[in-house]
This record gives sequence, structure tokens and C-alpha cells, in this order.
Amino acid sequence: MSDLTVAVDIGGTKFAVGLVEPDGRVVAAERAATPRGADAETLWRTLTDLLDRLDVPAALAGVGVGCGGPMTWPEGEVSPLNMGGWRGFPLRARLAERFPGVPVRIHNDAICLAVAEHWRGAGRGSAAMLGMVVSTGVGGGLILGGRLIDGGTGNAGHIGHVVVDPGGPPCGCGGNGCLEAIARGPGLAAWALAQGWSPGEAVTEGGLYREEGKATARQLAADAAAGDPIALAAMARAGRALGIAIASAVNLCDLDLVTVGGGLSQAGDLLFAPLEEALLEHTRMGFAGRVRVVPAALGQDAGLVGAAALVIAGDRYWSPSL
Amino acid sequence: MSDLTVAVDIGGTKFAVGLVEPDGRVVAAERAATPRGADAETLWRTLTDLLDRLDVPAALAGVGVGCGGPMTWPEGEVSPLNMGGWRGFPLRARLAERFPGVPVRIHNDAICLAVAEHWRGAGRGSAAMLGMVVSTGVGGGLILGGRLIDGGTGNAGHIGHVVVDPGGPPCGCGGNGCLEAIARGPGLAAWALAQGWSPGEAVTEGGLYREEGKATARQLAADAAAGDPIALAAMARAGRALGIAIASAVNLCDLDLVTVGGGLSQAGDLLFAPLEEALLEHTRMGFAGRVRVVPAALGQDAGLVGAAALVIAGDRYWSPSL
Repeated sequence: MSDLTVAVDIGGTKFAVGLVEPDGRVVAAERAATPRGADAETLWRTLTDLLDRLDVPAALAGVGVGCGGPMTWPEGEVSPLNMGGWRGFPLRARLAERFPGVPVRIHNDAICLAVAEHWRGAGRGSAAMLGMVVSTGVGGGLILGGRLIDGGTGNAGHIGHVVVDPGGPPCGCGGNGCLEAIARGPGLAAWALAQGWSPGEAVTEGGLYREEGKATARQLAADAAAGDPIALAAMARAGRALGIAIASAVNLCDLDLVTVGGGLSQAGDLLFAPLEEALLEHTRMGFAGRVRVVPAALGQDAGLVGAAALVIAGDRYWSPSL
Repeated sequence: MSDLTVAVDIGGTKFAVGLVEPDGRVVAAERAATPRGADAETLWRTLTDLLDRLDVPAALAGVGVGCGGPMTWPEGEVSPLNMGGWRGFPLRARLAERFPGVPVRIHNDAICLAVAEHWRGAGRGSAAMLGMVVSTGVGGGLILGGRLIDGGTGNAGHIGHVVVDPGGPPCGCGGNGCLEAIARGPGLAAWALAQGWSPGEAVTEGGLYREEGKATARQLAADAAAGDPIALAAMARAGRALGIAIASAVNLCDLDLVTVGGGLSQAGDLLFAPLEEALLEHTRMGFAGRVRVVPAALGQDAGLVGAAALVIAGDRYWSPSL
């Protein structure tokens, strides 16, 4: 009899699977790049090939899955934005066939990251927390009263679509002025290019990161660190947008903690200083002033840890009867 | 043995007390105007005089209290903004002395209104709802997973301080651009006056409401109904701000329902049409499009009903151990 949990983390850039101990330790993990332009069965085979490489015990606690949205929930028919091959793909049902007799639980990947931070990361012990990820998109998950909040359809936590500038740029969701429209990496890089940014051209004292002049958010952060004024303005723009959206969430949900992970969060103070400034301007009620914004603490295994928590700590992170 | 609950509703304009049946029916109620400029004990005596007029049975289910914020919670030391005489007044403890041996539970008055709508009003059966009140201030309460969400300090639901215009007018909370700064009745009337509004001067076909030319939100709504262009613009301004804030809340919390009560909601389509338009612009993700915004269904007893629900339906609306 084993008490290991199989964890699955399905993203637009990589697939990961792992075995997770009841205390959250990942004791085995396998990863593969997400095949580009693959059809449904090729994507499925990529996943099962990874699972085959795990030494899965005969008896399992269950299977936890994080996957890019949207999906029907808790049924888990997935249609990840960056994976055209899966449209209404019955990921949960297929995994339940492969692992019969144990719970198979799925949630949005950003929600799994928030759960991971609350369970084993920077959010431990928080009664009211928002876990955010800022990278190609801006997503998140809400933990209130010490429990994961699903919302009516499992979609709670979409902090990226809190409106921070009603007259702002169009967003991938079809709206405009959403946090994500401003602060997502590609959006921020595009804005900087439009202001005249030359990627990698900043004076780099001591050999800072240089991604061959590519217009990425990572290069933007490096150029900001090197003093490039446009890159600095871009970080300030993203930081302010983050601070405003976080303030709205804090005021609405009475949060005590916000964790921020993802590529852009690596920019450190260049991002967090303008974030804190805008947050302070817009959280003036007594209760709101207590909120702390901290970097996410878990690394590349966070997605697996959060997926496993849906099973291992289901009392806090899993509400459906499924 | 009785199963009646004593309900108490403490507001800036009136105090109300009542006896509430387990099904939510208010079977007796007493009201008095909030004494202006009164000290702590005068305010307390106003409340106890009202309670003396109720035929309170010897055995009670408990006491539920709604009171204007802020307050320490769940301890219930209250400092209502519009009642300078109570600063850190131990309202819950004083009521517990008067009604020994039964639970005495207190929450913010806007939260009690949301609870009332969920328990017995327009929000029955909703899994994910925001109950709003738009009048002198803009407040609310969140019900997610079918349960009242308290947040870390009992302050969840402050929809009035979701930021809708980061460069917008200053707010009473010390921030700026909050929904409340734009949509609260007095703020809206002040904006209209600054645009050249003459209260009560609109052509009133068929004798519409006229409040002797006072610059109130009610007069503003009447003038908008009579076709006054500035009053109409004011309603559109408030409606759009409401729509944007509601959209942010829907995207963040995956709501299926929003109830809107309070004076300004009486303006009907003049307010709700621009609200719906802005909401639609900013809720473009599939799950968000399902949300419905409806007028609150309960009348002047709503505060008492919601306060009583903290006791009668404590499984859904009361989380603290106190």
C-alpha cells in the first residue's frame, strides 16, 4: 500500500509529471516540451509516455492535475488556449481510465500554483491569500477562510482580468484595460518596443543577462536593471497596474497576503517598488493596509505540488463531490 | 421554549430591532431615528429602549446584529463612521450581557444585507454572489461556495473600494478612483452640480418626484427620468462605474449573481442600462458572461433578516467560533 500521489502539470511550454509524498515532497519527476501543433492523441501520448517513465506504485492515493484553461470543471474537459489540439479533450476521464479506483482531480494551472504556495510555499498559514503568476498571461487563485475558492464554475482567481484602466489596451479576453493586457510579458515588451526600446542595447555593467536582443520580458527586466529608461518605464507601468489590481482584490476580499510568481516577478524591486507604491495609494482602509505582497517561494515543481495538493489536502483545496 | 431570534440593525439614519422566526419572517419590529451627535450611553439607551418595546421570550435562539463599520470582528467593538459617539464601543459584549446564554453575532450592515438577499431574497440558491448596496456609501458582501466570505478580518465585500478609475476623484477611504468615490449618492450629486445641474428644474411630465430642489441622489434620479441631460449623464457615469467594478469582481470571484439595493438602484434602467453595457464590455470570458445583475428583493426589513440569519442559518453565514 502506497500513499504516493501522481501529479500532472500541463502547460503551453512543457508537460510535467511526478510522484508526490503526503508531505508535498516531489520524489520523482519527468518533463517534456509541449509538442507544437500536435493533435489530440499526440498530446495524450506525450503525457502517457511521461507517465510510463514514472515508477508508479500499484496502490496510489490519487491523481492531481493542473492544466491551462479554459476547461469544464470539475469534469475536466480541457481546451488550453495554447494547445489547439485539445478542444474539449476529456483529460480527467482519460486519466481516470488509466488510474482506476482512485480520485482524479483537476484544476486550472494558475490555481494549482496558488494552492502550492498556500500549502507548502510563501502562503503557509494565510487565512486570506491571492496567489498570482505573471508571465505570458496573468493568472491566480484565491484562498479565503483557509480554503480554495472555486467560484461558481471553478474560475475564481482570474486576477488578470480585473480592470485597471477602463480606457486601456485591448485584452486577449475580448475586453480592454485588464491587468493582463498591460502586465503580461509580451504585452509589456510590445509596449516598450513602441516607445523605442532596443532590446539588449542598455549599458550592461558587469555583464548582465542578454538574450541576443530578443524582445522578451526577461530581456526587458535585464535592460531595466542596466538602467535603460524605457525598460524602467515599462517595469513601472506593469508594477503600477499590478498594484492597482491587487488593491482592488485586497479591498474586495480582505486579503492578508499576495504571492507573485512567474517570469516578470524575477525583476525584483524594479517591479515591486512601483507595485507597492500603487498598492499603498489604493489600500487606505485600516484592514487593507496589513496586506503583504511577497515573491512566490516554490520553484519549477510548484505546479506538481499544487496538483498533488488537490488530492493530499483535499479538505482545504477540493470542494466538488467528483 | 422559543425559537425566535432577536435582530438588531444599527445604521447612521435609524436603529431597528425585531423578532425573527426560523423561516426569516419578521414578526415584530421597532424603529427609531439615530440620535444626532449623541454620546456612547445615549446611543446605547436608544437601542435598549427599542429592545424593551419588543416582547422578547424567555428562551431565545440568539441575537444577530448588523452595524455600520468599521468594527473589530468577530469581537464587535464598533466605531460606525456616521456615529461619532461610538468609538470602539463593545456592542457585542453589551448585548451578550443583556442576553446571557445565547449566541450574539455581529457583522457589517452591508454584509447583513447581502446575507439577507442570499437567504431570503433575490440571491436564493446562488453559489457565488455579490450583494451590493448603493446609497450614501457603496458596500457589499460576498457569498462563495454558498457560504458567507469573511476575509481575513471580517471585511470582505468592500466592492465600493474596487478601483474603477486610477486617476479618478478622491475617496473617503483616503484612496482615489474607488467605485464609491464616483457612485455614492452625494458624490454623484456633487458631480452633477459641478456640471451645471439645477436640481428639480427638469421638465417633469405628469408630476415626477421633486424634492424641493435639493441636490440629492433621489432628485438626480427623478431629473434623469424627466430627461435632464446632466442628470442622465450622471446616471450613466454611476452605471458605468458600477459595471466596471462588478466586472472586476465577476472575473476575480467567478460570480453568477449580483444583487443591487439602496437608494440609487431605484433609478432603474437609467442606471442599469449603462451598468449592463460596461459590464458586458468587461466580462468577455465564457464563464463571466453568465452573471446576472438584479435589483435587491427585500425591503426595509432586509437588515433585520440578514442579522437574524447570522444566528438562524449560522452554518452558511457564520464561521468564527465566537
